[in-house]
Amino acid sequence: MSDPRGKVAPLYPIQYDALLRRALREDLGRAGDLTTDAIVPVDAVATAHLVARADGRIAGLDVAATVFHMLDPRLRFAPRVGDGTDVRAGALLAEVGGPARPLLSGERVALNLLGRLSGIATATREIVAAVSPYPARVVCTRKTTPGLRALEKYAVRAGGGRNHRFGLDDAVLIKDNHLAIAGGVREAVERVRRTVGHMAKIEVEVDRLDQLQAALDLEVDAVLLDNMPLDVLRSAVDLARGRAITEASGGIRPDTAAAVAATGVDLLSVGWITHSAPALDVALDVTV
Amino acid sequence: MSDPRGKVAPLYPIQYDALLRRALREDLGRAGDLTTDAIVPVDAVATAHLVARADGRIAGLDVAATVFHMLDPRLRFAPRVGDGTDVRAGALLAEVGGPARPLLSGERVALNLLGRLSGIATATREIVAAVSPYPARVVCTRKTTPGLRALEKYAVRAGGGRNHRFGLDDAVLIKDNHLAIAGGVREAVERVRRTVGHMAKIEVEVDRLDQLQAALDLEVDAVLLDNMPLDVLRSAVDLARGRAITEASGGIRPDTAAAVAATGVDLLSVGWITHSAPALDVALDVTV
Amino acid sequence: MSDPRGKVAPLYPIQYDALLRRALREDLGRAGDLTTDAIVPVDAVATAHLVARADGRIAGLDVAATVFHMLDPRLRFAPRVGDGTDVRAGALLAEVGGPARPLLSGERVALNLLGRLSGIATATREIVAAVSPYPARVVCTRKTTPGLRALEKYAVRAGGGRNHRFGLDDAVLIKDNHLAIAGGVREAVERVRRTVGHMAKIEVEVDRLDQLQAALDLEVDAVLLDNMPLDVLRSAVDLARGRAITEASGGIRPDTAAAVAATGVDLLSVGWITHSAPALDVALDVTV
Amino acid sequence: MSDPRGKVAPLYPIQYDALLRRALREDLGRAGDLTTDAIVPVDAVATAHLVARADGRIAGLDVAATVFHMLDPRLRFAPRVGDGTDVRAGALLAEVGGPARPLLSGERVALNLLGRLSGIATATREIVAAVSPYPARVVCTRKTTPGLRALEKYAVRAGGGRNHRFGLDDAVLIKDNHLAIAGGVREAVERVRRTVGHMAKIEVEVDRLDQLQAALDLEVDAVLLDNMPLDVLRSAVDLARGRAITEASGGIRPDTAAAVAATGVDLLSVGWITHSAPALDVALDVTV
Amino acid sequence: MSDPRGKVAPLYPIQYDALLRRALREDLGRAGDLTTDAIVPVDAVATAHLVARADGRIAGLDVAATVFHMLDPRLRFAPRVGDGTDVRAGALLAEVGGPARPLLSGERVALNLLGRLSGIATATREIVAAVSPYPARVVCTRKTTPGLRALEKYAVRAGGGRNHRFGLDDAVLIKDNHLAIAGGVREAVERVRRTVGHMAKIEVEVDRLDQLQAALDLEVDAVLLDNMPLDVLRSAVDLARGRAITEASGGIRPDTAAAVAATGVDLLSVGWITHSAPALDVALDVTV
Amino acid sequence: MSDPRGKVAPLYPIQYDALLRRALREDLGRAGDLTTDAIVPVDAVATAHLVARADGRIAGLDVAATVFHMLDPRLRFAPRVGDGTDVRAGALLAEVGGPARPLLSGERVALNLLGRLSGIATATREIVAAVSPYPARVVCTRKTTPGLRALEKYAVRAGGGRNHRFGLDDAVLIKDNHLAIAGGVREAVERVRRTVGHMAKIEVEVDRLDQLQAALDLEVDAVLLDNMPLDVLRSAVDLARGRAITEASGGIRPDTAAAVAATGVDLLSVGWITHSAPALDVALDVTV
Repeated sequence: MSDPRGKVAPLYPIQYDALLRRALREDLGRAGDLTTDAIVPVDAVATAHLVARADGRIAGLDVAATVFHMLDPRLRFAPRVGDGTDVRAGALLAEVGGPARPLLSGERVALNLLGRLSGIATATREIVAAVSPYPARVVCTRKTTPGLRALEKYAVRAGGGRNHRFGLDDAVLIKDNHLAIAGGVREAVERVRRTVGHMAKIEVEVDRLDQLQAALDLEVDAVLLDNMPLDVLRSAVDLARGRAITEASGGIRPDTAAAVAATGVDLLSVGWITHSAPALDVALDVTV
Repeated sequence: MSDPRGKVAPLYPIQYDALLRRALREDLGRAGDLTTDAIVPVDAVATAHLVARADGRIAGLDVAATVFHMLDPRLRFAPRVGDGTDVRAGALLAEVGGPARPLLSGERVALNLLGRLSGIATATREIVAAVSPYPARVVCTRKTTPGLRALEKYAVRAGGGRNHRFGLDDAVLIKDNHLAIAGGVREAVERVRRTVGHMAKIEVEVDRLDQLQAALDLEVDAVLLDNMPLDVLRSAVDLARGRAITEASGGIRPDTAAAVAATGVDLLSVGWITHSAPALDVALDVTV
Repeated sequence: MSDPRGKVAPLYPIQYDALLRRALREDLGRAGDLTTDAIVPVDAVATAHLVARADGRIAGLDVAATVFHMLDPRLRFAPRVGDGTDVRAGALLAEVGGPARPLLSGERVALNLLGRLSGIATATREIVAAVSPYPARVVCTRKTTPGLRALEKYAVRAGGGRNHRFGLDDAVLIKDNHLAIAGGVREAVERVRRTVGHMAKIEVEVDRLDQLQAALDLEVDAVLLDNMPLDVLRSAVDLARGRAITEASGGIRPDTAAAVAATGVDLLSVGWITHSAPALDVALDVTV
Repeated sequence: MSDPRGKVAPLYPIQYDALLRRALREDLGRAGDLTTDAIVPVDAVATAHLVARADGRIAGLDVAATVFHMLDPRLRFAPRVGDGTDVRAGALLAEVGGPARPLLSGERVALNLLGRLSGIATATREIVAAVSPYPARVVCTRKTTPGLRALEKYAVRAGGGRNHRFGLDDAVLIKDNHLAIAGGVREAVERVRRTVGHMAKIEVEVDRLDQLQAALDLEVDAVLLDNMPLDVLRSAVDLARGRAITEASGGIRPDTAAAVAATGVDLLSVGWITHSAPALDVALDVTV
Repeated sequence: MSDPRGKVAPLYPIQYDALLRRALREDLGRAGDLTTDAIVPVDAVATAHLVARADGRIAGLDVAATVFHMLDPRLRFAPRVGDGTDVRAGALLAEVGGPARPLLSGERVALNLLGRLSGIATATREIVAAVSPYPARVVCTRKTTPGLRALEKYAVRAGGGRNHRFGLDDAVLIKDNHLAIAGGVREAVERVRRTVGHMAKIEVEVDRLDQLQAALDLEVDAVLLDNMPLDVLRSAVDLARGRAITEASGGIRPDTAAAVAATGVDLLSVGWITHSAPALDVALDVTV
Repeated sequence: MSDPRGKVAPLYPIQYDALLRRALREDLGRAGDLTTDAIVPVDAVATAHLVARADGRIAGLDVAATVFHMLDPRLRFAPRVGDGTDVRAGALLAEVGGPARPLLSGERVALNLLGRLSGIATATREIVAAVSPYPARVVCTRKTTPGLRALEKYAVRAGGGRNHRFGLDDAVLIKDNHLAIAGGVREAVERVRRTVGHMAKIEVEVDRLDQLQAALDLEVDAVLLDNMPLDVLRSAVDLARGRAITEASGGIRPDTAAAVAATGVDLLSVGWITHSAPALDVALDVTV
């Protein structure tokens, strides 16, 4: 039996319980679970297996456990693997047991979250695996589902990726629109330095080598090399080596990631793992 | 210029404004947009083009407009197409103009929503197109993102699909777990009829023809034919014709949908369009 | 001693706990229970009897228990009857015991909810009893207290009634204003069929026999026969027999219900049981 | 035409808008107004008359206006009477006009609130009228609907009544349970005086004359004479005259109020006007 | 060891838990405690001492306990003193033990609340001590931190003060602006008496003796003598003796309080104890 | 007349409007403004001057404006200075005009926020002025009021200070408790580097020079020199020069700040400006 302790630092339930509460209310509606209430006796008990229906990396078991517990504290949730684990189709992820009604009524919300987060972890792991011959790391973006950012970034970590900014407020990222309004890299960086705190790093998005040179001369912490052809990207990485962290972005997918990583870039920024990762198929099978 | 009025009944903002508020606060965090606040003067104005970067069907323009308006009521949002419209890569979706700071600070939240909803509409349209030679309709499931069900089901409508249940409370769907606990189709349906109101339809999920026969004998409104091989599905549809609405489910994708529809089934139930549809690539380009 | 297990499927606390929280904060205000805090020592304990002061049917005991538990998890709430039970004046409904302060501070909120819900159950039972010689069923309406719909519809079930729509979104009910705007029954029903999902039933409100005939010809699921004189209602029921569910509405009260039911109508729609039912008198008597 | 300005100080919308938002979301559910969305074109406009269907006193017109405005700010709401006005069945209360969809979708929530609040105002006025030959004033209790206390106490004022405590925290009311725990009137009052602020009045509930005497000797501000027979009540009022405000309580209804007031008591405390007042029948008629 | 039971009636957690939840989310942000998550193993346990770093009076220990419990219910919080106790620098206030991660992640929120509330209690005690030779009592104002009024007024009680109004709605306080608009003391008081309930006391703010005389003639409950020189204040107190409660306000600080109290005034109203009290320095030392 | 445009980037109202809504409801309670409602006619209008009663730096004018606007959109708020401006006692800060009732009812909430934020800005400016002969910058801490962090950090910026971390999640700060659990500086920093994203800076709190040396050898971004005597601090600054940002902390007040800054340290971390700054005295004087 695999180790049920997750390989990634867990979130505190207070970081996501309001979302779960909304999700349960969204599914129960005003009338509750018409079908289960009519069919399942109030004192019926049941046990169920939470299983993967496809290969993938798991994320969201604590979240699923909290969903069931929120509906009925008497439901027991015994994980068989931990978040961050790779499983094969058919793998038992957890056993859930107790009153049958809340077990059935909470199923969809738990599965929706577990499937989505595991989908993100699986997609992240796929990119991470693709670039494993290279030192590059995989990072996520702010292209997340509204309201689920903390959970989706957690799933990225469970997939072996690292997190970029969590929002507009935890680091400076000067993008093309900022450069257009400021009138250039120098003016933009100087304006930032006039007001920003000492704990905020500064990254500049560039798509040309002259912009990159300007950013490096200003000693920014990192440069985002956006949508560069591979040869230009390679030149950019060479130019920046030892002077700034380099990050590549622009339509990176599992089949293109290795070539980007081969340029020697430090980081691959991948929006796809959060905005377009397919859900992992997970199911709850009542065993009694 | 295309007609900016949507082809699908719009939601009231009160149905989604709390979600948008959470999304904006999630992205602004506690410190706000460090980069924009430092670089863009408080009185700067700008205009921007909201454009599609890929072919697709659009859903979420009202939502995007509300995002910008919520951040600053002075921002003008002029749609150039309506929800439910098919566009080509490069199409102008809307013009946004006004104070430059909120235009940049609201960009990501607006795009995340518009991209996700348009992705769902696009995926739905793809399935709808695949089954267009047949009378079958495409319906969605409860496999939606927690907290976004109303919006995602709206996007399905914008894609040409119809909605199945919005939650556990607006119709009866007797699934395999219910049958296992009740001990059979007859017992389950009879229990439901003892308590449920006259406006709730009753559907039974079956995966064998004898179950189907039992359900039809009980005169249920609809049958969910789950994961049946095509030939079995065809027999099931023949058996049920004129007696109950038939709905097929189980891993339906654009490349398999037509064969399912060819069985003569009334409805295709497709989870993929909400749980795994890739986002449509949309962007905001500041033009000044 | 009667059976403390309710005769109606219980709600999950997550369906009403936010309301209870608001109710407790509403009563405690900012300063809390001035009187109890001043008079009752912090370590005082007490037990109390929750009793009915009038004959009636009980609904809301779980809700009352949750109120006390929310204020102080150490309070024990032992029900003596279950929701859906008929009691006589003086009947012991539950014993509550533990720390004296929260017992007194939570009393009013618990009683307000229990009294209101039991009032609705009692009123419903009264109508149900009045029509018991006939096959007609009693259903409620959307004329409920804002914010309490799930609880009030639960109380209707506890009273032996069934629920009509829980909101504008779980079935189609075409009313006179819709007909006026659409221009007639046919146009209205056809517009609905163009967009609505397969799990939503369609009911049409009619007040004349020609409208009824049009609705029946369109094979709607149900007809709402509004404010018809008894002889017209009888004709309508005859006309619709076997073709649609018939529902009568319009000022139905305990003294008029039997005559309506005697027409053979399937359902009596009664707003009075939720918008105007007097509260059942319940009290909490400290016994120590 | 009557004066549309209310006869009672209006509430600020911020005091009730969260309730209205919840009420609208409760009625719209996740899918919105299926019927109206299907039948009414998005650009249809309509006007409607808000009318009373029974004699009564009106309360809640601002609230109804806010409901419509919250759904669509383009809806115009023109009141024809003001809160606190007596109207006859058939009276025009307000005209509402603008986009037809939100007019129909908001109807039920607006009517539910207006009907309930007007029902309370009407019941209050009835008691006030019954005691008009006497100087006694009518006051309400904390027996209000959870979550609606501010609105229901407003309706009491619109009905000509006055408000008692709004919660446990804005005055001291020593009840029988407090006396039991404290061991007597003297001990209870002294404990209160040791901690309570100078702006909180002190009232004691008594049901015997010796308790009343003790309370008067302690110079409390008011005495609540609970469930006293009329002759005892008369003695109590005589005893307390000039020494404390006297308040009678216990099952007061329109037909018993005058006899209670005839005892000379200062105040009649009436729970019935909030916990059991029938709703006033109000309707919205689309005039096209 | 001192008695850990507080000397002031505790609040119910439901009165402040929403604030604590917001505070924890505010500090954890979207990404959580980056430092602790990276450094502290998920199964590490620790114990810590909560200590005072300065002399003061303690308030907020229940609140601090709830913070830790909210983050992780396994954390044990053992108070060593109770709210309302005076401690010296170095005093042990509580021991906290259990999982190390939430212990560290909750530290700042717990300390911020405990430090602020103890600061208010300490400042209040300082004023109370200064006026101890006189019968005058110390009361607080509505000059509190938005959102923390219930907690800050609790801290005032822990410091030995009493509470004035908790808001605009629990008593009448006629201030200079009201007098200006009403046109005089008589007109203002009469307008109030026409509408306000019998449980609301009436206080009038005056700054001249003729205003005071008018208020006394109208038999108001209390007079707020604002910013009067000491000799005028003394005359005012003499004038009002036996006729109304007298309350002095205006820039009262520890060094000026005694002189004000020496005038014989009943109450000193002190905004400084809530709007400007420095926090008490408290710390959490992990003992491993 | 001074320039009414603020000298600091304004927040978006969506960042603080929920707090303001809570604050207004906290002050209005359930019954609203008893005094104003009784005395001020519903159609009375008034204008008022918002004035400073002491010298200070202003922060919070937008917030105050939003308070009034939230209560009644018809109230006009015309600022006369901008946030970040120094004013003298008596200075006119803004004119507010419109309906008299909401002007009076919103006064206290607006003043409480403006007074607190201006108090923080004033305290910050005082420290900034004290260190002006030196290059050191003043930064704030996480010792803020629960729920007000975004506003209080804004006030620090208005006072001329810079912001440190906004929460546990936007940078790494390794403190003494982390070092104790990790077993040393090296182990702690290495653990952090294994998981944290590339945009998060790393700071280590040290109180001894050997710890400092270890941190510098690990090339951390910044070192927090906690509670060091001035001579040790000077050595630490010399040691770290050019290798890490240096930040001093520990009981810094206006009278000790200059000596700390004279050591050459880059940053002074001052908790006092948020946890103990006295409010600035501001008032609203009705002029009509």
